[in-house]
Amino acid sequence: MTVALSTTADLAIDETAADLLFRTARTTSQWTDAPVTDDELAAAWDLAKFGPTAMNSLPLRFAVVRSAEERARLVELMPDGNKSRVESAPVTLVLAYDHDFHEHMDTLFPHAPGIKDQFAPAEEMRHGMGSLNAHLQAGYLLVGLRAAGLAAGPMHAADYAGVDAAFFAGTGFKSFLVVNVGHADGEGTTYPRLPRFDLDEVSISL
Amino acid sequence: MTVALSTTADLAIDETAADLLFRTARTTSQWTDAPVTDDELAAAWDLAKFGPTAMNSLPLRFAVVRSAEERARLVELMPDGNKSRVESAPVTLVLAYDHDFHEHMDTLFPHAPGIKDQFAPAEEMRHGMGSLNAHLQAGYLLVGLRAAGLAAGPMHAADYAGVDAAFFAGTGFKSFLVVNVGHADGEGTTYPRLPRFDLDEVSISL
Repeated sequence: MTVALSTTADLAIDETAADLLFRTARTTSQWTDAPVTDDELAAAWDLAKFGPTAMNSLPLRFAVVRSAEERARLVELMPDGNKSRVESAPVTLVLAYDHDFHEHMDTLFPHAPGIKDQFAPAEEMRHGMGSLNAHLQAGYLLVGLRAAGLAAGPMHAADYAGVDAAFFAGTGFKSFLVVNVGHADGEGTTYPRLPRFDLDEVSISL
Repeated sequence: MTVALSTTADLAIDETAADLLFRTARTTSQWTDAPVTDDELAAAWDLAKFGPTAMNSLPLRFAVVRSAEERARLVELMPDGNKSRVESAPVTLVLAYDHDFHEHMDTLFPHAPGIKDQFAPAEEMRHGMGSLNAHLQAGYLLVGLRAAGLAAGPMHAADYAGVDAAFFAGTGFKSFLVVNVGHADGEGTTYPRLPRFDLDEVSISL
């Protein structure tokens, strides 16, 4: 394992982008006063939306929490250690997957006409497919936010059922992650970077 | 929804990188004869490894399948529509999460000494945490592969229990995705790009 930055050969993107997206990016909890604009969020989404999902199912949905009133509701549903992080973030995204993602499949995946009707009764399958593909998309979105010049601080809520009731009532959206977003003040954190596995520690060659 | 590429304002990475990582990248099934080197895979991993996971749990593991013998075993476990895709790919990664990821927590997350022992009996929790965080990491890895100049073709196996028995016997690794990797021949696919949601179709502002 290593804590140090790697010197990565053979990249197709420049060093600045590699640092910004991965190598020096940190889970952020310290922000400048700069607001997060709608254009910045759109820029992030307009990259992340292209990431692949199974059958182009695209189940990720999210709330963009800016107002003092909605933020206070969210803070109540966070664990104690994360309450102040939500309070101090310029914007907080509440990520969810749409359990009814299949309703869009005729448009999203025209290769399989009628698949929507096969998915409709398969509730457990939709929970799995929705949740897992939305997590893939969350990975793309975190990278996309950084590509748009923003920093991200992903963390967990204490009560996702409560989050669903507070923010997604009347929908099939199931929340799974909370992400503070803003412009990082300096490195955005005072925590030292934690270790990462090297390639030979996570892979086997066959 | 839209099929067209967006003109994305306000990016912190250059247009070339935005195209390569997201906007023009495609799920690939057509490859050049160029091999995938160990250095290229290391370059991809040495970016993707920095993506955040819950408690730095880093549960993603993978097999790198290159040999004819191992490839044939994998082909047997793929659905008919994906067999030829595995046969023709320069390298195929079999992505899994480590159900025993907690064994590394004392090193990966020293902020919570002893958490390893709390996680040990919580098998169901470890399945969820392992699977979901590995899917986040799969998102980072797909972007990392593109950043290393490679193209990726993610798809599903027909029989993940069979994949685990064939490639991960004696470990706690649970496979969940198969990713062909190589250098794209042209666009890498003849399928037209499928629609994507616009920001206002997936988000609500509060």
